[in-house]
Amino acid sequence: MTYCVGLKLNRGLVFMSDTRTNAGVDNISVFRKMFHWEAEGERSITLMTAGNLATTQAVVSLLNERALPAEERGSPSIMEAPSMFQVARLVGETLREIIQEQSAENGQSGEAFSATIIVGGQVRGGDQRLFLVYPEGNFVEASADTPFFQIGETKYGKPILVRAYDPDMSFEDAVKLLMLSFDSTIKANLSVGLPLDLHLYEADGFRDGVKRRIEQGDPFYETLSSGWSEALKDAFQRMPPYSLT
Amino acid sequence: MTYCVGLKLNRGLVFMSDTRTNAGVDNISVFRKMFHWEAEGERSITLMTAGNLATTQAVVSLLNERALPAEERGSPSIMEAPSMFQVARLVGETLREIIQEQSAENGQSGEAFSATIIVGGQVRGGDQRLFLVYPEGNFVEASADTPFFQIGETKYGKPILVRAYDPDMSFEDAVKLLMLSFDSTIKANLSVGLPLDLHLYEADGFRDGVKRRIEQGDPFYETLSSGWSEALKDAFQRMPPYSLT
Repeated sequence: MTYCVGLKLNRGLVFMSDTRTNAGVDNISVFRKMFHWEAEGERSITLMTAGNLATTQAVVSLLNERALPAEERGSPSIMEAPSMFQVARLVGETLREIIQEQSAENGQSGEAFSATIIVGGQVRGGDQRLFLVYPEGNFVEASADTPFFQIGETKYGKPILVRAYDPDMSFEDAVKLLMLSFDSTIKANLSVGLPLDLHLYEADGFRDGVKRRIEQGDPFYETLSSGWSEALKDAFQRMPPYSLT
Repeated sequence: MTYCVGLKLNRGLVFMSDTRTNAGVDNISVFRKMFHWEAEGERSITLMTAGNLATTQAVVSLLNERALPAEERGSPSIMEAPSMFQVARLVGETLREIIQEQSAENGQSGEAFSATIIVGGQVRGGDQRLFLVYPEGNFVEASADTPFFQIGETKYGKPILVRAYDPDMSFEDAVKLLMLSFDSTIKANLSVGLPLDLHLYEADGFRDGVKRRIEQGDPFYETLSSGWSEALKDAFQRMPPYSLT
Protein backbone atom coordinates (compact mmCIF):
# COMPACT_ATOMS: atom_id res chain seq x y z
CA MET A 1 0.00 0.00 0.00
CA THR A 2 0.96 3.65 0.13
CA TYR A 3 0.09 6.85 1.90
CA CYS A 4 0.40 10.29 0.30
CA VAL A 5 -1.08 13.63 1.32
CA GLY A 6 -1.20 16.92 -0.57
CA LEU A 7 -2.17 19.93 1.52
CA LYS A 8 -3.17 23.35 0.23
CA LEU A 9 -2.22 26.22 2.52
CA ASN A 10 -2.47 29.93 1.90
CA ARG A 11 1.31 30.11 1.85
CA GLY A 12 1.83 27.17 -0.47
CA LEU A 13 1.45 23.45 -1.11
CA VAL A 14 2.79 20.69 1.09
CA PHE A 15 3.36 17.19 -0.27
CA MET A 16 4.29 14.12 1.73
CA SER A 17 4.52 10.50 0.58
CA ASP A 18 5.82 7.28 2.03
CA THR A 19 8.10 5.01 0.02
CA ARG A 20 6.97 1.50 0.89
CA THR A 21 5.61 -0.82 -1.76
CA ASN A 22 4.53 -4.33 -1.08
CA ALA A 23 3.38 -7.32 -3.05
CA GLY A 24 2.06 -9.26 -0.10
CA VAL A 25 3.70 -8.67 3.25
CA ASP A 26 6.93 -10.49 2.44
CA ASN A 27 7.95 -8.53 -0.62
CA ILE A 28 8.50 -5.02 0.62
CA SER A 29 10.62 -2.50 -1.23
CA VAL A 30 11.42 1.19 -1.17
CA PHE A 31 10.23 3.13 -4.21
CA ARG A 32 9.90 6.84 -4.69
CA LYS A 33 6.28 7.93 -5.11
CA MET A 34 6.90 11.68 -5.34
CA PHE A 35 8.12 13.30 -8.55
CA HIS A 36 9.00 16.86 -9.54
CA TRP A 37 9.17 18.92 -12.71
CA GLU A 38 10.49 22.45 -12.55
CA ALA A 39 11.21 25.32 -14.94
CA GLU A 40 12.58 27.93 -12.59
CA GLY A 41 10.65 31.16 -12.66
CA GLU A 42 7.93 29.60 -14.76
CA ARG A 43 6.47 26.45 -13.19
CA SER A 44 6.82 23.81 -10.50
CA ILE A 45 4.83 20.57 -10.61
CA THR A 46 4.76 17.83 -7.99
CA LEU A 47 3.09 14.47 -8.47
CA MET A 48 2.45 11.62 -6.02
CA THR A 49 1.19 8.16 -6.91
CA ALA A 50 -0.73 5.31 -5.26
CA GLY A 51 -1.77 2.02 -6.80
CA ASN A 52 -0.22 -0.49 -9.17
CA LEU A 53 3.51 0.31 -9.22
CA ALA A 54 4.00 -0.75 -12.84
CA THR A 55 1.19 1.60 -13.86
CA THR A 56 2.45 4.58 -11.87
CA GLN A 57 6.05 4.09 -13.04
CA ALA A 58 4.89 3.93 -16.66
CA VAL A 59 2.86 7.11 -16.18
CA VAL A 60 5.83 8.95 -14.70
CA SER A 61 8.15 7.65 -17.44
CA LEU A 62 5.79 8.83 -20.15
CA LEU A 63 5.37 12.22 -18.51
CA ASN A 64 9.15 12.41 -18.21
CA GLU A 65 9.77 11.57 -21.84
CA ARG A 66 7.28 14.17 -22.84
CA ALA A 67 8.87 16.74 -20.54
CA LEU A 68 12.27 16.64 -22.28
CA PRO A 69 13.59 19.80 -23.96
CA ALA A 70 11.38 20.79 -26.87
CA GLU A 71 13.58 19.33 -29.64
CA GLU A 72 13.76 15.86 -28.04
CA ARG A 73 10.24 15.34 -26.84
CA GLY A 74 6.92 14.44 -28.29
CA SER A 75 3.87 16.51 -27.47
CA PRO A 76 1.86 17.06 -25.39
CA SER A 77 4.13 17.93 -22.46
CA ILE A 78 3.34 18.96 -18.90
CA MET A 79 6.22 21.43 -19.27
CA GLU A 80 4.34 23.21 -22.04
CA ALA A 81 0.78 22.96 -20.76
CA PRO A 82 -0.46 26.54 -20.36
CA SER A 83 -2.07 25.98 -16.93
CA MET A 84 -2.21 23.58 -13.98
CA PHE A 85 -5.64 22.54 -15.20
CA GLN A 86 -4.10 21.39 -18.48
CA VAL A 87 -1.30 19.68 -16.55
CA ALA A 88 -3.93 17.73 -14.60
CA ARG A 89 -5.67 16.82 -17.88
CA LEU A 90 -2.43 15.49 -19.33
CA VAL A 91 -1.70 13.49 -16.20
CA GLY A 92 -5.24 12.07 -16.28
CA GLU A 93 -5.00 11.14 -19.95
CA THR A 94 -1.63 9.48 -19.43
CA LEU A 95 -2.92 7.52 -16.45
CA ARG A 96 -6.02 6.33 -18.29
CA GLU A 97 -3.94 5.42 -21.36
CA ILE A 98 -1.57 3.22 -19.33
CA ILE A 99 -4.37 1.50 -17.41
CA GLN A 100 -6.35 0.79 -20.60
CA GLU A 101 -3.21 -0.49 -22.36
CA GLN A 102 -2.34 -2.82 -19.48
CA SER A 103 -5.82 -4.22 -19.10
CA ALA A 104 -6.28 -4.68 -22.87
CA GLU A 105 -2.97 -6.55 -23.12
CA ASN A 106 -3.91 -8.77 -20.20
CA GLY A 107 -7.56 -9.27 -21.02
CA GLN A 108 -8.42 -8.19 -17.50
CA SER A 109 -10.51 -5.40 -16.06
CA GLY A 110 -8.63 -2.20 -15.22
CA GLU A 111 -9.01 -2.83 -11.50
CA ALA A 112 -5.74 -4.74 -11.16
CA PHE A 113 -3.75 -1.98 -12.87
CA SER A 114 -5.51 0.89 -11.20
CA ALA A 115 -3.77 3.90 -9.69
CA THR A 116 -4.57 7.32 -8.29
CA ILE A 117 -2.48 10.47 -8.47
CA ILE A 118 -2.19 13.75 -6.62
CA VAL A 119 -0.70 16.52 -8.75
CA GLY A 120 -0.18 20.12 -7.72
CA GLY A 121 1.91 23.17 -8.36
CA GLN A 122 1.76 26.44 -10.20
CA VAL A 123 2.26 27.69 -13.74
CA ARG A 124 3.04 31.40 -14.27
CA GLY A 125 -0.16 33.28 -15.05
CA GLY A 126 -2.26 31.16 -12.69
CA ASP A 127 -2.71 30.36 -9.00
CA GLN A 128 -1.25 27.40 -7.15
CA ARG A 129 -3.57 24.43 -7.62
CA LEU A 130 -3.91 20.92 -6.29
CA PHE A 131 -5.72 18.03 -8.03
CA LEU A 132 -6.71 14.46 -7.31
CA VAL A 133 -6.63 12.39 -10.51
CA TYR A 134 -8.74 9.22 -10.75
CA PRO A 135 -7.90 6.05 -12.72
CA GLU A 136 -10.59 7.06 -15.23
CA GLY A 137 -8.50 10.13 -16.08
CA ASN A 138 -10.90 12.68 -14.60
CA PHE A 139 -9.98 14.75 -11.57
CA VAL A 140 -11.16 17.07 -8.80
CA GLU A 141 -9.52 20.18 -7.41
CA ALA A 142 -8.81 21.12 -3.81
CA SER A 143 -10.83 24.05 -2.51
CA ALA A 144 -11.41 25.89 0.75
CA ASP A 145 -13.95 23.20 1.65
CA THR A 146 -11.68 20.31 0.74
CA PRO A 147 -8.20 21.68 1.24
CA PHE A 148 -6.29 18.40 1.17
CA PHE A 149 -6.20 15.10 -0.69
CA GLN A 150 -5.06 11.73 0.55
CA ILE A 151 -4.39 8.64 -1.55
CA GLY A 152 -3.55 5.05 -0.61
CA GLU A 153 -4.11 4.00 2.99
CA THR A 154 -6.03 7.15 3.91
CA LYS A 155 -8.25 6.33 6.85
CA TYR A 156 -5.96 6.01 9.86
CA GLY A 157 -4.39 9.41 9.27
CA LYS A 158 -7.55 11.34 8.48
CA PRO A 159 -8.92 12.19 11.96
CA ILE A 160 -5.91 14.32 12.94
CA LEU A 161 -5.91 16.11 9.55
CA VAL A 162 -9.60 16.91 9.88
CA ARG A 163 -9.09 18.34 13.33
CA ALA A 164 -5.82 20.26 13.15
CA TYR A 165 -5.63 21.57 9.56
CA ASP A 166 -5.74 25.34 9.25
CA PRO A 167 -5.22 27.13 5.90
CA ASP A 168 -3.13 29.80 7.63
CA MET A 169 -0.76 27.37 9.32
CA SER A 170 3.00 27.67 8.81
CA PHE A 171 5.01 25.17 6.77
CA GLU A 172 6.66 24.07 10.02
CA ASP A 173 3.27 23.25 11.58
CA ALA A 174 2.03 21.63 8.38
CA VAL A 175 5.00 19.26 8.30
CA LYS A 176 4.37 18.44 11.94
CA LEU A 177 0.71 17.74 11.14
CA LEU A 178 1.56 15.50 8.19
CA MET A 179 4.16 13.61 10.22
CA LEU A 180 1.52 12.94 12.90
CA SER A 181 -0.92 11.76 10.24
CA PHE A 182 1.74 9.46 8.79
CA ASP A 183 2.73 8.25 12.24
CA SER A 184 -0.88 7.26 13.05
CA THR A 185 -0.97 5.32 9.78
CA ILE A 186 2.41 3.67 10.20
CA LYS A 187 1.58 2.59 13.77
CA ALA A 188 -1.64 0.94 12.56
CA ASN A 189 -0.67 -0.49 9.18
CA LEU A 190 2.37 -2.49 8.10
CA SER A 191 2.09 -1.53 4.46
CA VAL A 192 3.03 2.11 5.01
CA GLY A 193 6.57 2.91 6.14
CA LEU A 194 9.47 5.31 6.38
CA PRO A 195 11.37 6.93 4.71
CA LEU A 196 9.01 9.77 3.82
CA ASP A 197 9.47 12.28 1.01
CA LEU A 198 8.57 15.91 1.60
CA HIS A 199 8.18 18.89 -0.71
CA LEU A 200 7.13 22.41 0.28
CA TYR A 201 6.08 24.59 -2.63
CA GLU A 202 5.92 28.30 -1.78
CA ALA A 203 3.00 30.05 -3.51
CA ASP A 204 4.12 32.31 -6.39
CA GLY A 205 7.65 30.96 -6.10
CA PHE A 206 7.50 29.22 -9.50
CA ARG A 207 10.27 26.89 -8.41
CA ASP A 208 10.64 23.81 -6.25
CA GLY A 209 10.91 24.57 -2.56
CA VAL A 210 12.41 22.63 0.31
CA LYS A 211 12.73 18.91 -0.43
CA ARG A 212 13.61 16.45 2.28
CA ARG A 213 13.74 12.72 2.77
CA ILE A 214 12.82 11.76 6.33
CA GLU A 215 14.71 8.56 7.03
CA GLN A 216 14.01 5.78 9.50
CA GLY A 217 15.33 6.99 12.86
CA ASP A 218 15.02 10.70 12.00
CA PRO A 219 15.43 12.37 15.43
CA PHE A 220 12.61 14.89 14.92
CA TYR A 221 10.20 12.21 13.71
CA GLU A 222 11.08 9.95 16.63
CA THR A 223 10.62 12.76 19.16
CA LEU A 224 7.33 13.72 17.60
CA SER A 225 6.07 10.14 17.49
CA SER A 226 6.82 9.36 21.12
CA GLY A 227 5.84 12.85 22.27
CA TRP A 228 2.50 12.50 20.51
CA SER A 229 1.80 9.15 22.16
CA GLU A 230 2.44 10.76 25.53
CA ALA A 231 0.39 13.84 24.66
CA LEU A 232 -2.55 11.68 23.55
CA LYS A 233 -2.39 9.64 26.75
CA ASP A 234 -2.26 12.85 28.80
CA ALA A 235 -5.16 14.36 26.89
CA PHE A 236 -7.06 11.10 27.35
CA GLN A 237 -6.45 11.15 31.10
CA ARG A 238 -7.62 14.76 31.33
CA MET A 239 -10.93 14.01 29.63
CA PRO A 240 -13.71 13.28 32.15
CA PRO A 241 -14.49 9.56 32.64
CA TYR A 242 -17.91 8.24 31.68
CA SER A 243 -20.25 8.07 34.63
CA LEU A 244 -21.88 4.69 35.22
CA THR A 245 -24.25 5.93 37.89
CA MET B 1 -21.34 0.62 7.07
CA THR B 2 -20.98 -0.11 10.75
CA TYR B 3 -18.50 0.25 13.54
CA CYS B 4 -18.34 -2.13 16.50
CA VAL B 5 -15.61 -2.69 19.08
CA GLY B 6 -15.23 -5.41 21.69
CA LEU B 7 -12.62 -4.75 24.34
CA LYS B 8 -11.22 -7.25 26.80
CA LEU B 9 -10.21 -5.76 30.15
CA ASN B 10 -9.09 -7.52 33.28
CA ARG B 11 -12.29 -6.42 34.97
CA GLY B 12 -14.60 -7.45 32.16
CA LEU B 13 -15.69 -7.03 28.57
CA VAL B 14 -16.80 -3.79 26.96
CA PHE B 15 -18.96 -3.77 23.84
CA MET B 16 -19.91 -0.75 21.77
CA SER B 17 -21.70 -0.62 18.43
CA ASP B 18 -23.22 2.07 16.27
CA THR B 19 -26.71 1.67 14.85
CA ARG B 20 -26.50 3.16 11.38
CA THR B 21 -27.13 1.05 8.33
CA ASN B 22 -27.03 2.37 4.83
CA ALA B 23 -27.78 1.14 1.35
CA GLY B 24 -26.09 3.97 -0.48
CA VAL B 25 -25.93 7.33 1.26
CA ASP B 26 -29.60 8.18 0.79
CA ASN B 27 -31.11 5.15 2.48
CA ILE B 28 -29.97 5.38 6.07
CA SER B 29 -31.75 3.63 8.91
CA VAL B 30 -31.25 2.82 12.56
CA PHE B 31 -30.87 -0.88 13.35
CA ARG B 32 -29.62 -2.53 16.47
CA LYS B 33 -26.35 -4.40 15.91
CA MET B 34 -25.80 -5.53 19.49
CA PHE B 35 -27.65 -8.52 20.95
CA HIS B 36 -27.69 -10.20 24.34
CA TRP B 37 -28.50 -13.61 25.76
CA GLU B 38 -28.46 -14.11 29.49
CA ALA B 39 -29.15 -16.89 31.98
CA GLU B 40 -28.54 -15.11 35.24
CA GLY B 41 -25.91 -16.78 37.38
CA GLU B 42 -24.93 -19.06 34.53
CA ARG B 43 -24.03 -17.17 31.36
CA SER B 44 -24.05 -13.83 29.57
CA ILE B 45 -23.39 -13.61 25.83
CA THR B 46 -23.13 -10.44 23.75
CA LEU B 47 -22.95 -10.40 19.97
CA MET B 48 -22.29 -7.55 17.53
CA THR B 49 -22.63 -7.71 13.77
CA ALA B 50 -21.22 -5.99 10.69
CA GLY B 51 -22.00 -6.68 7.06
CA ASN B 52 -25.09 -7.57 5.07
CA LEU B 53 -28.04 -6.66 7.30
CA ALA B 54 -30.28 -9.44 5.96
CA THR B 55 -27.56 -11.96 6.77
CA THR B 56 -26.89 -10.67 10.27
CA GLN B 57 -30.60 -10.43 11.12
CA ALA B 58 -31.14 -13.99 9.92
CA VAL B 59 -28.22 -15.18 12.03
CA VAL B 60 -29.58 -13.46 15.13
CA SER B 61 -33.10 -14.78 14.47
CA LEU B 62 -31.81 -18.32 14.13
CA LEU B 63 -29.71 -17.99 17.28
CA ASN B 64 -32.77 -16.59 19.04
CA GLU B 65 -35.05 -19.40 17.95
CA ARG B 66 -32.49 -21.89 19.12
CA ALA B 67 -32.12 -20.08 22.44
CA LEU B 68 -35.77 -20.54 23.45
CA PRO B 69 -36.61 -22.60 26.55
CA ALA B 70 -35.59 -26.22 26.06
CA GLU B 71 -39.06 -27.57 25.21
CA GLU B 72 -39.64 -25.02 22.40
CA ARG B 73 -36.29 -24.88 20.70
CA GLY B 74 -34.33 -26.98 18.32
CA SER B 75 -30.75 -27.85 19.13
CA PRO B 76 -28.02 -26.77 19.14
CA SER B 77 -28.46 -23.67 21.29
CA ILE B 78 -26.03 -21.04 22.46
CA MET B 79 -27.87 -21.17 25.79
CA GLU B 80 -26.84 -24.80 26.19
CA ALA B 81 -23.34 -24.72 24.73
CA PRO B 82 -21.00 -25.84 27.52
CA SER B 83 -18.39 -23.11 26.92
CA MET B 84 -17.81 -19.79 25.18
CA PHE B 85 -15.69 -21.66 22.65
CA GLN B 86 -18.72 -23.78 21.74
CA VAL B 87 -20.87 -20.63 21.61
CA ALA B 88 -18.42 -19.13 19.09
CA ARG B 89 -18.56 -22.36 17.07
CA LEU B 90 -22.35 -22.24 16.94
CA VAL B 91 -22.32 -18.59 15.93
CA GLY B 92 -19.75 -19.35 13.21
CA GLU B 93 -21.76 -22.30 11.90
CA THR B 94 -24.96 -20.28 11.83
CA LEU B 95 -23.25 -17.41 10.03
CA ARG B 96 -21.71 -19.69 7.41
CA GLU B 97 -25.03 -21.50 6.95
CA ILE B 98 -26.92 -18.26 6.24
CA ILE B 99 -24.28 -16.92 3.86
CA GLN B 100 -24.11 -20.20 1.92
CA GLU B 101 -27.90 -20.41 1.75
CA GLN B 102 -28.21 -16.83 0.47
CA SER B 103 -25.51 -17.19 -2.15
CA ALA B 104 -26.79 -20.59 -3.32
CA GLU B 105 -30.31 -19.21 -3.73
CA ASN B 106 -29.01 -16.20 -5.64
CA GLY B 107 -26.36 -17.95 -7.69
CA GLN B 108 -23.85 -15.38 -6.53
CA SER B 109 -20.63 -15.61 -4.62
CA GLY B 110 -20.91 -15.21 -0.85
CA GLU B 111 -19.24 -11.79 -0.98
CA ALA B 112 -22.51 -9.86 -1.31
CA PHE B 113 -24.04 -11.61 1.69
CA SER B 114 -20.95 -11.52 3.83
CA ALA B 115 -20.88 -10.49 7.48
CA THR B 116 -18.54 -10.52 10.46
CA ILE B 117 -19.42 -10.97 14.12
CA ILE B 118 -17.88 -10.21 17.49
CA VAL B 119 -19.15 -12.48 20.24
CA GLY B 120 -18.05 -12.47 23.85
CA GLY B 121 -19.15 -13.29 27.34
CA GLN B 122 -18.76 -15.97 29.93
CA VAL B 123 -20.25 -19.37 30.71
CA ARG B 124 -19.97 -20.70 34.25
CA GLY B 125 -16.98 -22.99 34.54
CA GLY B 126 -14.86 -20.91 32.18
CA ASP B 127 -13.21 -17.51 31.86
CA GLN B 128 -14.65 -14.49 30.07
CA ARG B 129 -13.76 -14.77 26.38
CA LEU B 130 -14.02 -12.60 23.30
CA PHE B 131 -14.10 -13.89 19.69
CA LEU B 132 -14.06 -12.48 16.18
CA VAL B 133 -16.10 -14.72 13.85
CA TYR B 134 -15.40 -14.65 10.10
CA PRO B 135 -17.91 -15.18 7.28
CA GLU B 136 -16.32 -18.59 6.70
CA GLY B 137 -17.49 -19.60 10.17
CA ASN B 138 -14.05 -19.83 11.72
CA PHE B 139 -12.92 -17.45 14.45
CA VAL B 140 -10.05 -16.05 16.49
CA GLU B 141 -9.92 -15.21 20.18
CA ALA B 142 -8.75 -12.01 21.87
CA SER B 143 -5.57 -12.38 23.90
CA ALA B 144 -3.17 -10.19 25.82
CA ASP B 145 -1.45 -9.37 22.52
CA THR B 146 -4.70 -8.59 20.70
CA PRO B 147 -7.03 -7.44 23.43
CA PHE B 148 -9.71 -5.92 21.23
CA PHE B 149 -11.57 -6.58 18.00
CA GLN B 150 -13.12 -4.07 15.62
CA ILE B 151 -15.52 -4.82 12.77
CA GLY B 152 -16.97 -2.60 10.07
CA GLU B 153 -15.35 0.77 9.46
CA THR B 154 -12.33 0.03 11.65
CA LYS B 155 -9.48 2.23 10.49
CA TYR B 156 -10.31 5.76 11.61
CA GLY B 157 -10.81 4.71 15.20
CA LYS B 158 -7.84 2.39 15.53
CA PRO B 159 -4.98 4.84 16.30
CA ILE B 160 -6.50 6.01 19.60
CA LEU B 161 -7.33 2.43 20.65
CA VAL B 162 -3.77 1.31 19.93
CA ARG B 163 -2.36 4.16 21.97
CA ALA B 164 -4.63 4.44 25.00
CA TYR B 165 -5.85 0.88 25.69
CA ASP B 166 -4.70 -0.58 28.99
CA PRO B 167 -5.96 -3.95 30.29
CA ASP B 168 -6.19 -2.53 33.81
CA MET B 169 -8.31 0.47 32.86
CA SER B 170 -11.64 1.11 34.56
CA PHE B 171 -14.98 0.66 32.79
CA GLU B 172 -15.42 4.45 32.99
CA ASP B 173 -12.14 5.01 31.13
CA ALA B 174 -12.88 2.24 28.66
CA VAL B 175 -16.20 3.82 27.71
CA LYS B 176 -14.42 7.15 27.30
CA LEU B 177 -11.83 5.47 25.05
CA LEU B 178 -14.47 3.77 22.93
CA MET B 179 -16.46 6.99 22.60
CA LEU B 180 -13.33 8.76 21.34
CA SER B 181 -12.68 5.96 18.88
CA PHE B 182 -16.27 6.19 17.65
CA ASP B 183 -16.10 9.97 17.51
CA SER B 184 -12.99 9.84 15.29
CA THR B 185 -14.85 7.47 13.00
CA ILE B 186 -18.10 9.42 12.94
CA LYS B 187 -16.26 12.69 12.23
CA ALA B 188 -14.51 11.10 9.23
CA ASN B 189 -17.18 8.79 7.80
CA LEU B 190 -20.85 9.39 7.05
CA SER B 191 -21.79 5.74 7.21
CA VAL B 192 -21.23 5.42 10.97
CA GLY B 193 -23.53 7.33 13.31
CA LEU B 194 -25.17 7.74 16.68
CA PRO B 195 -26.99 6.35 18.63
CA LEU B 196 -24.45 3.94 20.11
CA ASP B 197 -25.19 0.80 22.10
CA LEU B 198 -23.05 -0.05 25.08
CA HIS B 199 -22.75 -3.15 27.24
CA LEU B 200 -20.33 -3.64 30.13
CA TYR B 201 -19.95 -7.26 31.21
CA GLU B 202 -18.29 -7.64 34.60
CA ALA B 203 -15.97 -10.67 34.74
CA ASP B 204 -17.39 -13.57 36.77
CA GLY B 205 -20.74 -11.78 37.03
CA PHE B 206 -22.52 -14.37 34.86
CA ARG B 207 -25.19 -11.82 34.06
CA ASP B 208 -25.59 -8.81 31.80
CA GLY B 209 -24.05 -5.65 33.18
CA VAL B 210 -24.75 -1.99 32.49
CA LYS B 211 -26.51 -1.45 29.15
CA ARG B 212 -26.93 2.00 27.71
CA ARG B 213 -28.01 3.61 24.50
CA ILE B 214 -26.07 6.81 23.83
CA GLU B 215 -28.39 9.01 21.81
CA GLN B 216 -27.65 11.85 19.43
CA GLY B 217 -27.04 14.91 21.58
CA ASP B 218 -25.96 12.91 24.67
CA PRO B 219 -24.38 15.61 26.87
CA PHE B 220 -21.38 13.51 27.90
CA TYR B 221 -20.66 12.46 24.33
CA GLU B 222 -20.94 16.06 23.12
CA THR B 223 -18.62 17.34 25.86
CA LEU B 224 -16.14 14.59 25.15
CA SER B 225 -16.21 15.18 21.41
CA SER B 226 -15.63 18.92 21.58
CA GLY B 227 -13.21 18.59 24.50
CA TRP B 228 -11.19 16.05 22.56
CA SER B 229 -10.98 18.31 19.52
CA GLU B 230 -9.64 21.07 21.77
CA ALA B 231 -7.26 18.70 23.56
CA LEU B 232 -5.88 17.43 20.24
CA LYS B 233 -5.37 20.97 18.99
CA ASP B 234 -3.64 21.89 22.25
CA ALA B 235 -1.45 18.80 22.13
CA PHE B 236 -0.66 19.61 18.50
CA GLN B 237 0.37 23.15 19.40
CA ARG B 238 2.60 21.90 22.20
CA MET B 239 4.52 19.55 19.89
CA PRO B 240 7.69 21.19 18.52
CA PRO B 241 7.35 22.51 14.94
CA TYR B 242 9.46 20.97 12.20
CA SER B 243 12.63 22.95 11.55
CA LEU B 244 13.17 23.98 7.94
CA THR B 245 16.69 25.28 8.50
